[in-house]
Amino acid sequence: MTLVVAKFGGTSVADLERIKAVAGHVADCRAEGHKVVVVVSAMAGETDRLVALGAGVGDRPDPREMDVLLASGEQVSIALVAMAIQKQGFSARSFLASQIRLHTTGPHTKAKISRVEVAHLQACVNADVIPVVAGFQGVGNDGDVTTIGRGGSDTTAVAIAAALNADECRIYTDVDGVYTADPRIVEQARRLDRVICEEMLEMAALGAKVLHTRCVEYAHRYSVPLRVMSSFNRGTGTLIGEEEEGDEMERPVVSAVTHDRNEAKVTVLRVPDEPGLAYKLLGPIGNAGISVDMIVQNVGAEDLTDMTFTVTREDFPQCMEILRKSIDELSNVLAEEQIEQMRVVGDDSIAKVTVVGVGMRSHAGVATKMFETLARYGINIQMISTSEIKISVVIHEDFCELAVRALHSAFELDEPSPLAV
Amino acid sequence: MTLVVAKFGGTSVADLERIKAVAGHVADCRAEGHKVVVVVSAMAGETDRLVALGAGVGDRPDPREMDVLLASGEQVSIALVAMAIQKQGFSARSFLASQIRLHTTGPHTKAKISRVEVAHLQACVNADVIPVVAGFQGVGNDGDVTTIGRGGSDTTAVAIAAALNADECRIYTDVDGVYTADPRIVEQARRLDRVICEEMLEMAALGAKVLHTRCVEYAHRYSVPLRVMSSFNRGTGTLIGEEEEGDEMERPVVSAVTHDRNEAKVTVLRVPDEPGLAYKLLGPIGNAGISVDMIVQNVGAEDLTDMTFTVTREDFPQCMEILRKSIDELSNVLAEEQIEQMRVVGDDSIAKVTVVGVGMRSHAGVATKMFETLARYGINIQMISTSEIKISVVIHEDFCELAVRALHSAFELDEPSPLAV
Repeated sequence: MTLVVAKFGGTSVADLERIKAVAGHVADCRAEGHKVVVVVSAMAGETDRLVALGAGVGDRPDPREMDVLLASGEQVSIALVAMAIQKQGFSARSFLASQIRLHTTGPHTKAKISRVEVAHLQACVNADVIPVVAGFQGVGNDGDVTTIGRGGSDTTAVAIAAALNADECRIYTDVDGVYTADPRIVEQARRLDRVICEEMLEMAALGAKVLHTRCVEYAHRYSVPLRVMSSFNRGTGTLIGEEEEGDEMERPVVSAVTHDRNEAKVTVLRVPDEPGLAYKLLGPIGNAGISVDMIVQNVGAEDLTDMTFTVTREDFPQCMEILRKSIDELSNVLAEEQIEQMRVVGDDSIAKVTVVGVGMRSHAGVATKMFETLARYGINIQMISTSEIKISVVIHEDFCELAVRALHSAFELDEPSPLAV
Repeated sequence: MTLVVAKFGGTSVADLERIKAVAGHVADCRAEGHKVVVVVSAMAGETDRLVALGAGVGDRPDPREMDVLLASGEQVSIALVAMAIQKQGFSARSFLASQIRLHTTGPHTKAKISRVEVAHLQACVNADVIPVVAGFQGVGNDGDVTTIGRGGSDTTAVAIAAALNADECRIYTDVDGVYTADPRIVEQARRLDRVICEEMLEMAALGAKVLHTRCVEYAHRYSVPLRVMSSFNRGTGTLIGEEEEGDEMERPVVSAVTHDRNEAKVTVLRVPDEPGLAYKLLGPIGNAGISVDMIVQNVGAEDLTDMTFTVTREDFPQCMEILRKSIDELSNVLAEEQIEQMRVVGDDSIAKVTVVGVGMRSHAGVATKMFETLARYGINIQMISTSEIKISVVIHEDFCELAVRALHSAFELDEPSPLAV
């Protein structure tokens, strides 16, 4: 008998009707012959409501108390989902993170899962009781309530699947799988039956909203087969698994085209080409908790270089401010005229478009085809960044949809048109 | 330095404005030189919302899961109140029942507090950190989340005050103290500065909504001075304490007039006057979790008796049903004709009106004066029940306000009119 961990996100438990549907999916899992452990998020909108309550008390609410506040959302869900599963005739039992001892380390509101004690869950599974576990929350030092960051419930599910050595971790969500591109942009986008973990990692990092990077990383690290499927329809979804023999050769060169419109570009002009300067400029940004995505630097004339990188649009204003301050503080290492000629310029009307695929490793010419396609449509490339299995370009955001459609078509990802059959 | 446990109920934390006011009261306590431990209920309306959610999943939701669901309400409050206290410049730290190990025994949704481990709280108090504890919830066997019944937060506060050996337990609520009668009915009702514990016990049991019986019992048993005061105004409220030397003689004969309109009367007519029958009739009612309040029985003619008792109006229909079934089941101890002549009649348009006062112990004639007053207004008495310090009568509910006003005046409880000063 196989063991499945089934995670249901906020939209899947948004109201009592949806919660009853969750119980239906769990019953289906049982009918398929699986033992089931359920992980749930807070009801859609609940976390936002709680965040607003916390913000209403005053700015910068204590992170420890924010965690206590936020964790209440999942507590409501587990109770309701356990009740709904019981109505389907199964035994079910809810568990808070503190009850199954899902230990975390690190700061409040962004803790990391360090250890899951499986004794309680395993005992339930053995006794044919369906455990319903609160996602997103954990227990920290001193028994403090912690949370592991937004979207953390996916990670909770994978961590529990890994700890229980489950056969599959199903992420039920509001889409029916991973697509070759965002179907709202590309009408011919197709659902993928299977995605290689590394591809999914790139896609998650690059704006595909289906899964969080952390969750995919965790699944990859612990070899947990992950399946994304819809809680609104029936279907087999998309299986995210390890690469198998021959995958590189047999799979299409490009598996998907993703895009991200939530980035902004920051350029520091005329940076003296001296060792340690990149660190002096980027260090304070990282220290402020801002993630830098793409970084591009070229050596130019006169021992000067321009350094460009991208951050999320939310972090953009703060990032500009930090950079200007960092440059002022370079006076102990640079001459005054060197500092004076440096300039920080920003642009938040950009989009990042990426083609992803493990097939790229064994196929040449992907970059050429990508650039050629964009050129054909008159789309200017502002930045390029590549890895073994992806090529990302930054373009003006106005061309985002056009670029995605053109690349989807050029890499032969379009659904065959009915006429072609 | 004195230690005060301050409990704030649902209306006192109903919204962010009220929560900020709570922090103000806590700051006042500190300014008065007290160390403070705070206990809070769920925000007003929240428990009802959660109950409705649970009921929406289906009838008879699992009590274990109901407890998980309901306890989330207090979790939200403690986080927000802790944050609000921090904004006032104090250190504060929220605690769930599981975190301070507030142990309970007994069934879910109506557990009883069995033990409070004070190490965490005492450490906070010593370190000048204000603990904010979730009322109403506890931790049961296996670390289960439990709740201790509605209004249980008062009991939580008293239990914590007892465990910490606090100097006073303040119950902040939406009234500014205990009154000689319900001010909505008796315009001349006065706030009492001090009420004897036994009086408060009778008043709580008899319909005064200010405090729950359990909380007063607990305070009495552990000699915790209890103070009821308003979270909407400043004031000294009403101190509920132990009787002191001379109280009986010096205090007024009657301290207050209470009323309860939430009862119904059940009469079993023509019960054979045989030993054990009362038990056979009342036993199954108690087993169904229904509390019986007043019981009156008189021996009548022909070895038959009528037995009358009162239950809450919610329990009334179920109680009638159980009684009819119990009578049918008496066939193994009674003759058929004895069973056939018994009848169950009910009446839910009654009110119970009570005069309470420890002064009664040393003063004769209270009952006479009470009955005389009611007779003067033509109010028929249906049942009478007395204890050392109270006399209760059951009358038709239409006469409730009239009776309360007449008795309040007859026992000289009215606020002196401005003209009399």
